[in-house]
Amino acid sequence: MTTSQPFKRIALISRHHNMDAAPVFTNLIKHLNKQSDIVYIQKKTAENLQLPPHNLSIIQDDTLANHCDLLLSVGGDGNFLNTAQLALTHDLPILGINRGRLGFLADVYPHELEKITSVLDGNYIEEQRTVLTCAVSHTEQVATYCDTALNEITLSPKQGPKLIEFEIMINGQFVCTQRSDGLIIATPTGSTAYALSGGGPILYPSLNVVVLVPIFSHNLSSRPIVINADDTITIQLRNAGGVQAHISCDSRPCILMSACATLHIKKYEQTVRLIHPHDYNYFQTLRSKLHWESKEHVGTSAH
Amino acid sequence: MTTSQPFKRIALISRHHNMDAAPVFTNLIKHLNKQSDIVYIQKKTAENLQLPPHNLSIIQDDTLANHCDLLLSVGGDGNFLNTAQLALTHDLPILGINRGRLGFLADVYPHELEKITSVLDGNYIEEQRTVLTCAVSHTEQVATYCDTALNEITLSPKQGPKLIEFEIMINGQFVCTQRSDGLIIATPTGSTAYALSGGGPILYPSLNVVVLVPIFSHNLSSRPIVINADDTITIQLRNAGGVQAHISCDSRPCILMSACATLHIKKYEQTVRLIHPHDYNYFQTLRSKLHWESKEHVGTSAH
Amino acid sequence: MTTSQPFKRIALISRHHNMDAAPVFTNLIKHLNKQSDIVYIQKKTAENLQLPPHNLSIIQDDTLANHCDLLLSVGGDGNFLNTAQLALTHDLPILGINRGRLGFLADVYPHELEKITSVLDGNYIEEQRTVLTCAVSHTEQVATYCDTALNEITLSPKQGPKLIEFEIMINGQFVCTQRSDGLIIATPTGSTAYALSGGGPILYPSLNVVVLVPIFSHNLSSRPIVINADDTITIQLRNAGGVQAHISCDSRPCILMSACATLHIKKYEQTVRLIHPHDYNYFQTLRSKLHWESKEHVGTSAH
Amino acid sequence: MTTSQPFKRIALISRHHNMDAAPVFTNLIKHLNKQSDIVYIQKKTAENLQLPPHNLSIIQDDTLANHCDLLLSVGGDGNFLNTAQLALTHDLPILGINRGRLGFLADVYPHELEKITSVLDGNYIEEQRTVLTCAVSHTEQVATYCDTALNEITLSPKQGPKLIEFEIMINGQFVCTQRSDGLIIATPTGSTAYALSGGGPILYPSLNVVVLVPIFSHNLSSRPIVINADDTITIQLRNAGGVQAHISCDSRPCILMSACATLHIKKYEQTVRLIHPHDYNYFQTLRSKLHWESKEHVGTSAH
Repeated sequence: MTTSQPFKRIALISRHHNMDAAPVFTNLIKHLNKQSDIVYIQKKTAENLQLPPHNLSIIQDDTLANHCDLLLSVGGDGNFLNTAQLALTHDLPILGINRGRLGFLADVYPHELEKITSVLDGNYIEEQRTVLTCAVSHTEQVATYCDTALNEITLSPKQGPKLIEFEIMINGQFVCTQRSDGLIIATPTGSTAYALSGGGPILYPSLNVVVLVPIFSHNLSSRPIVINADDTITIQLRNAGGVQAHISCDSRPCILMSACATLHIKKYEQTVRLIHPHDYNYFQTLRSKLHWESKEHVGTSAH
Repeated sequence: MTTSQPFKRIALISRHHNMDAAPVFTNLIKHLNKQSDIVYIQKKTAENLQLPPHNLSIIQDDTLANHCDLLLSVGGDGNFLNTAQLALTHDLPILGINRGRLGFLADVYPHELEKITSVLDGNYIEEQRTVLTCAVSHTEQVATYCDTALNEITLSPKQGPKLIEFEIMINGQFVCTQRSDGLIIATPTGSTAYALSGGGPILYPSLNVVVLVPIFSHNLSSRPIVINADDTITIQLRNAGGVQAHISCDSRPCILMSACATLHIKKYEQTVRLIHPHDYNYFQTLRSKLHWESKEHVGTSAH
Repeated sequence: MTTSQPFKRIALISRHHNMDAAPVFTNLIKHLNKQSDIVYIQKKTAENLQLPPHNLSIIQDDTLANHCDLLLSVGGDGNFLNTAQLALTHDLPILGINRGRLGFLADVYPHELEKITSVLDGNYIEEQRTVLTCAVSHTEQVATYCDTALNEITLSPKQGPKLIEFEIMINGQFVCTQRSDGLIIATPTGSTAYALSGGGPILYPSLNVVVLVPIFSHNLSSRPIVINADDTITIQLRNAGGVQAHISCDSRPCILMSACATLHIKKYEQTVRLIHPHDYNYFQTLRSKLHWESKEHVGTSAH
Repeated sequence: MTTSQPFKRIALISRHHNMDAAPVFTNLIKHLNKQSDIVYIQKKTAENLQLPPHNLSIIQDDTLANHCDLLLSVGGDGNFLNTAQLALTHDLPILGINRGRLGFLADVYPHELEKITSVLDGNYIEEQRTVLTCAVSHTEQVATYCDTALNEITLSPKQGPKLIEFEIMINGQFVCTQRSDGLIIATPTGSTAYALSGGGPILYPSLNVVVLVPIFSHNLSSRPIVINADDTITIQLRNAGGVQAHISCDSRPCILMSACATLHIKKYEQTVRLIHPHDYNYFQTLRSKLHWESKEHVGTSAH
C-alpha cells in the first residue's frame, strides 16, 4: 500500500430496493458528506432506494466519468459486478461496501467509517482485475464483442440442464469436443464464484490466466483447464437436434446462441480497478468465506 | 439365470426417424418373425420409421398389455427410458437393442441374432429396477403423483444456470437448505447417467437406495447423500425473487414449479423389468462405458 | 425412542493422557455415582488419566462382559472407535461423550448431565451399526479374519503416496484393475469420516451398504461404488516391482500385505450398538459438522 | 518451430533392466550412429541394459556437459523425470522416446526414425518447463535447497494415509492451516500427473504458475490454489503427536521432515528444456491420454 491521491468526488451505486437499507445509506451519506467535495447518487439508485430527503446530487450514468473519481458500490458482490460495468465504461475505480456478510469484492462494512475515511484519504490498495469480453458470430459473420464479465462467461443450454455439444479451440488450436451441460470461462476474480461450485481451482487474483470449467461433462475425465488470459477462446456449438445455448456474462441476461454459431472470448482491453482498505488480505477473505478457520470437519478415524 | 417362459409376442418400440435405420430393422424383423408367434410394431414407431413394406402388425399403445409379452426397445439408452414408460403402464418386460455403442440399459447389438434368439427362448436374466415418482403441490393442495423416472428426477432453475434455494426433507425430517443450480435424485439405474457427471457415486443396480446429488451447490461441503429408496423426499422451493424451477423425469419435458411449491418424491409401486442376455455382467458394462480397461491414464512421476 | 431397561453398571473408557481432562472426569464420575449401581473405570484408562483419588472400581477388559451393561466412551470419535473394539468383543452398547466439538459418534457433552441421566434411565435411541472385518491371505492359504472396522478399512502403499496396482472382485466377480494410491472400503458410519475426504458419498447410517472409494486413482473416471454390505470384497495386490501395501482398520496400526497377497473383506457378524440421547438427529449432526448451516459460501455472480 | 542447430552428440539415458528392451535399443542405436557425430550411452544405462556388443562410447554422468548436446531419454515419463535431473545439472535438452504408450513428456515412439532424424537435424520445438526446488529447515536453521522436481513436490505422512497438520504461507503471508493426508505442489508439467489424480486443474505448460493440491483434506471446502511460480511457499509441520512427514520430489526417495520443521519451496533458477518433434501438439496429447476422443461416456437420459 502506498498513499495515493484522495478520492474527493464519490458516486453511490446500489440496486437495493428495500426500505430497510435506507438507514445504512443515510448514515453513510452523512459521513461521506463531511469528507468529500461532492457525493453523487446514481439516478437509478436514487429511484430504487426512495431515500428520505437528502442533499446528494443525482447523477446520470453518462456523466460519471467527468464528475467522479470513485464509485462506491453498496450491496453484495452481485451489486459490485453491476457497478463494474459502469466502472469499465467510465474508467473509474470501485470500493465495495457490503451490507451483509463480507464478500470477495465488497469487503468493507458500512459501519467501518474510519476505514472508509482512510480509503478516501488515499490509503488504499488498488488492484487491476482481468475482465473478459465475448462475441457470438454466425457463419461468415464478423464477431462484434459486446459484453464484458469480471467473474465469468457461462455457456449453457437454453433450457434447464440439457446436453449441448461444442468444440473448444484455443488460439485457433482444437482442444476437444465436449458434451456437457455447458462451460464456465472464469477470470481469477470469478474463480471463487460460480466456477468454484463447479470444481474449478482458486486462481490468485493477480494471475494473468483464465480457467475453463466444464459443467457436468459426459466425459468423466474432463477437467478444468487453466490457460493464459491472453489466449483467445473459440467455442463452436454443434447442431445436436437444434439445441440452442445461452451466453451469460456475470449471470446477467443472456445472449442466445443458435446451433452452429461461434462464441469468441478474449481478454478485455481494460481492467476493473478494485480499491481495498489498507489492511486487505486476500487469504483472510478466502479463509473466512470458505470456512477454513474451524478446526475439525469430517469424523476422524483416530487418524 | 434360469430358463423361463419363452417370449412369443414381441412389440418393437423405437423413436428412430432416420431412414438409415431401416436395414437394421428389416433384418431384425426377418429374424424375429421366424421365432415369434407374432411381431408387432408400435404405431408411432411405424410412422416414424417409414419402413419398406413388411408384414408386421401395427399396435396401439393401449392394447400392448393384452397382446404382447415383451417390449423390444431398439435405439440407445434414451429410447429405452421412453420404452420404460410403456413398460410400467402395461407391466411388460423390456429387452434393449442398441444400434450404436452398447448402453447401460440397451445391451444387445442388433446383429447378435443368436443372443436375441436365446433370450426369446427363455434364457435370460430378469432384473427389477427401482423407479421414482414425483408430484408438485402448492399450499394446502394434495400432491398428485403424475410422472415416473427410471434414471432420475432433476430439479433445476427454469432458465439457464441460476441459483435456486430450497429445503430438503427426508421422511418429514429437515435435512438442509440448499442454494445451488438444482438437485438430481437418482435411482441406482440413474447413478451411472446424469448423476455420475455431477459427482454422484455408482450404486449397484439391485440396491434399494436413492442418491441426492447437488448441482453446483454454493456450499462447498455439500455432498451426494445415499438414502433408503423407501424414504419419501420433500423439497420446498423458497421464494428467492420469484425464481421458478423445472422438474424433469428422465430428461423429458418439464413440470413447472413456482416459488413456495413443494416437490414430493417417492418410490413408485412398480419396477421396470429389464431383460438381459444370459451373459450379462454389470461390471463388464461399467468397465467398458467408463474406460476402466486401459492401462495408463495420467502422467506418472515414476511412482 | 422407546423407554428401555436402565443402564446400572457403567464402565468408563478413555485414552486421555492429559491432566486437564481430570476435572471433567471427576465431575462426571460424581454424577454417575449418584445414579448407577456401580461405575467402573477401565484399568488402562485409569493408568493413563492419573485421576485424583476416587472410589471407582478398576476393571480389566476381559471381565467387562460380566460386570457392565454400558460402555461410556469419553473422548472424541477416535476414542469411540477404540471403544467399539471392546464393545464388539463383549457385546456391550456404547454411549459417546465428547470433550471437544461434538462428533458423529460421540454426541453428548460431558456437561449435559441431565441428558446423560436420561439415557441411563433408559430413555435413549439404540442404533445397530454395520462393522467390516478383513483378512489377508497368501497363495493357497485360508484367510483368517482378524480385525474389525466400524468406519473403514484402508488399503494403502507401505510408504507414502505411491502407486499400487490391484484387482477388485465382488462376490468373486471381477470389477476392475485399479492403479491408485489405495482404496477405502467404508461402512455408512465411516462414510462421513475418511471416505468423505476422498470424495465418497454420505450413506445414511442404517443402510446395509458399503462404499469403495479409490484414493487418487490414475484412471480419472474411477468413481466411488456403493454395494450391498453382504457382498464379499476381494482385492488382489499385483506384483508391481515388489510394492507392499498396508491394511488398516479405523486407522489403527497396519497389517502388512505382500505383493500377490489377497485381502478379503466382509460384513462382521455383529454390529456396534450406538446409544444416542432421545433428541438425537442425524441430519442435525451432518449440518453442524459439515457447516451446512451458514448462508453464503462462494462469491455470487448476482445469480 | 524454427530450424535450429542440429544435435550431433547424443547420450542415451534409460533405466530399463529387462533384456527385451535390447532390440529396440539396437535398432535405435544403428539409426543414430548414421546421423550423429557420436552416440554415448550413460554408464549406468549400459550396465542395466546389458546390450549385445555395440560400438557406443560409455559416458560418466559428470562429463555429460562437455561431451553432449542432447539427452535421449528412452523409457516412459518416469525415466524422463530421472533424466531431467541430469539435464538440469548439465544444462542439456532432452528428447523423450517412449517404448510403451506415448507419455506427456516422452512423446516419440522408437520406431519413428524419420521423426527422430528430423529432430536431430534441428527441426524441433523447444519448451522451457518450470522446475521447483525445496529445502527442509529446523528452528533457526538456514534452509539448504537440495532437490528439484519437474512434476511435483509431495508432502505426505511418513506412514500410510495418516492425518498431518501444517500451516501454509505464501510469500510469508499466512494462507491456512490444513489437516489432511498431505499436499501436492505441482508445476504445469506436473499438473497432468499426480496432481490431476488429486483433483487439480490442468495448467497449460508455458504458464508461470504452480498449483497446491490438498490430499484428502479434512476441510471439505479445501480446493486447489493456483499461484504465481515466483511466489515462495513455506509449510510448517505442526507437532500433532510427533507425526513425521515425507517430502518427495517427482516420487523419488524422500526427505524426512520432523514435527515443527519447515518446508521451503520456490522456483528453481533453471528450466528443463524439452525437445518435441515439429508436429507436437499439447492438446492432442491431452485428448489421447485422458480419453477425450471417444464420443459417449455416461448413460444418457435422452438428454
